[in-house]
Amino acid sequence: MSRGQKHGYHHAMKLESALHQTLALDIGGANIKACYTDHTGVLHAFSQPFLLSHHVDELVEALNGVVQRCPQVPQQWLVTMTGELCDCFENRKQGVHAILDAVSTVAGQVPVRIWSTTDGFVDMQYARENSLAIASANWHALASCLGRLHADQRLILIDTGSTTTDIIPVIHGHVATQGKTDAARLVHHELVYLGGSLTPLMALSGHMQGQLMNEFFATMHDLAVVMGACPQELDSVDSPDGMPYDLPSSLRRILRMFGEDLNVDWQLADHAQVIESLLDAATGMIQFAFNHVVNRHQSIDVVLIGGSGSWLPCQMLGRMENPFAVRMLQTLWGEGMSTCACARALIALACETNGK
Amino acid sequence: MSRGQKHGYHHAMKLESALHQTLALDIGGANIKACYTDHTGVLHAFSQPFLLSHHVDELVEALNGVVQRCPQVPQQWLVTMTGELCDCFENRKQGVHAILDAVSTVAGQVPVRIWSTTDGFVDMQYARENSLAIASANWHALASCLGRLHADQRLILIDTGSTTTDIIPVIHGHVATQGKTDAARLVHHELVYLGGSLTPLMALSGHMQGQLMNEFFATMHDLAVVMGACPQELDSVDSPDGMPYDLPSSLRRILRMFGEDLNVDWQLADHAQVIESLLDAATGMIQFAFNHVVNRHQSIDVVLIGGSGSWLPCQMLGRMENPFAVRMLQTLWGEGMSTCACARALIALACETNGK
Repeated sequence: MSRGQKHGYHHAMKLESALHQTLALDIGGANIKACYTDHTGVLHAFSQPFLLSHHVDELVEALNGVVQRCPQVPQQWLVTMTGELCDCFENRKQGVHAILDAVSTVAGQVPVRIWSTTDGFVDMQYARENSLAIASANWHALASCLGRLHADQRLILIDTGSTTTDIIPVIHGHVATQGKTDAARLVHHELVYLGGSLTPLMALSGHMQGQLMNEFFATMHDLAVVMGACPQELDSVDSPDGMPYDLPSSLRRILRMFGEDLNVDWQLADHAQVIESLLDAATGMIQFAFNHVVNRHQSIDVVLIGGSGSWLPCQMLGRMENPFAVRMLQTLWGEGMSTCACARALIALACETNGK
Repeated sequence: MSRGQKHGYHHAMKLESALHQTLALDIGGANIKACYTDHTGVLHAFSQPFLLSHHVDELVEALNGVVQRCPQVPQQWLVTMTGELCDCFENRKQGVHAILDAVSTVAGQVPVRIWSTTDGFVDMQYARENSLAIASANWHALASCLGRLHADQRLILIDTGSTTTDIIPVIHGHVATQGKTDAARLVHHELVYLGGSLTPLMALSGHMQGQLMNEFFATMHDLAVVMGACPQELDSVDSPDGMPYDLPSSLRRILRMFGEDLNVDWQLADHAQVIESLLDAATGMIQFAFNHVVNRHQSIDVVLIGGSGSWLPCQMLGRMENPFAVRMLQTLWGEGMSTCACARALIALACETNGK
């Protein structure tokens, strides 16, 4: 297994509707997530790590790498993104254009359709002229797709990735957020900047009774490790101190946030209070936002949990008395597909458009 | 000017008491701060950037560099530290020992005295056996020294560095904190993990009305820049996106924390609300802790503000009605000396011991 595939997922499933040789991409700041239908309509998904902010000049090469992992040359591209947010770009417009440039270069003459929060799929020229409707629209694609699947229900999607949580009401098939941009969704508690793995624990500062050391000593992945809730292995190169994501290392990093050391004869139970205080803060952040969104809607039938960090909203729901049905996107689509859920959603949305 | 001296300070003043060829060091995680008395008793201070966590193997070399900047070979070393906190060390004990090892190597046969929170200056062997009284004791040295200078007063020292703020009551010459370790001082609000420059703005998350993007997009130094409150130039290599610490770049980084872009025709006044919300959060964090400490003491005569991030407590005091006299360590000792205040304090404390 090559370095590039180390974090990769590769799962195949038969698509509900025939859509052949289509490549759907969700181009983020840390990963390019891909969903691909082969010539028989079978669906494949994989995630390719790519740190856009450090390697923006290599995006064309990275996209070529993605195409090479497809069983045939794609005959159609579908694109959404969040990578334009990276601070290697002066602003989001510049970021959207840079990403679209790279996509154009690699796609060549093959048609590209880009998801917008305003008009669904649009072409390259429209996308360039309306870059703010393209910027960070991947959540909107996923919510739109799930809306089609739950057209008669009042749904809230809680999608927790590595650094963020989307809280998206989808009412009778329609995306019912108050905000559409990241800035507006932050204000309306529809975007919470807390994820299940890469978010530094200092983001919990101010949400806790006690104080934390605001240093990059530990991440939410360390909390996941001590909770036994790790959906995937992370490289030790990604950890704050370069040590592994194992129980003693994660606990050591967490204690460092409190100015404490890990003793030689440590027991996990001895540190239950520290872990609980962090969990309270983390689930509290999600719940505060979730309550805001729920309260704007009279009743909710279903809460759908998705994303690689889904252990976190699951922890939150476990602490609540809730009157709604809870479903997991992992169960609906399988773990690999749900990790690439926004790309997967593009395929489903394109099937629908094809059928029209 | 060499790269090593780029951030350096070098100021000289005549010492109040004769103490010759003494080198005092405050060995931190990002800088080695030094205060040196030459053979005539004149005092010099300088700060040498050294990222301990990335270059722990080069500490001996860095200390040799410090010694070479002294006008004569030191005949006595005085040492305090916070560098043991770096996550390159498994725990603080290991960190203290590693730093003492490097000091021993470079000092050779020259006597070394280390400041402890329990017994004042101690020798190398005692320091090794009582490493937790040595760990992060630099605040205690400074407070002890200032206590001698304000022996008849009820003083609170607010010392804001690049990443932390110490809030230290010194009552009639005695350090009157409830905590002595970092962990205990955090609990008792005597240590706040918010500094004037290097702290990422995500540390303000949860202290604000609105939400921030919990990404490493901007720092407290960006806030200082837009406030026109920069005490020193920072290299652009230290900024989150590698761009300069100038007004448009800092404002762009700050807006990114809110999911906003900087327009071409920006005016600082257009963003007053965003800046005010961050300032409210930052000063609020310091004030919350300050009030805790004040409330534990019946009355306070003097608040003494020090450190490279002193613009932040000054902003806080500007927003308060306060009944106490406010003094600046910069005025007392001069800017260069106050930047190396903990090392400077060691010299003063050693003078006193010498006089006995």
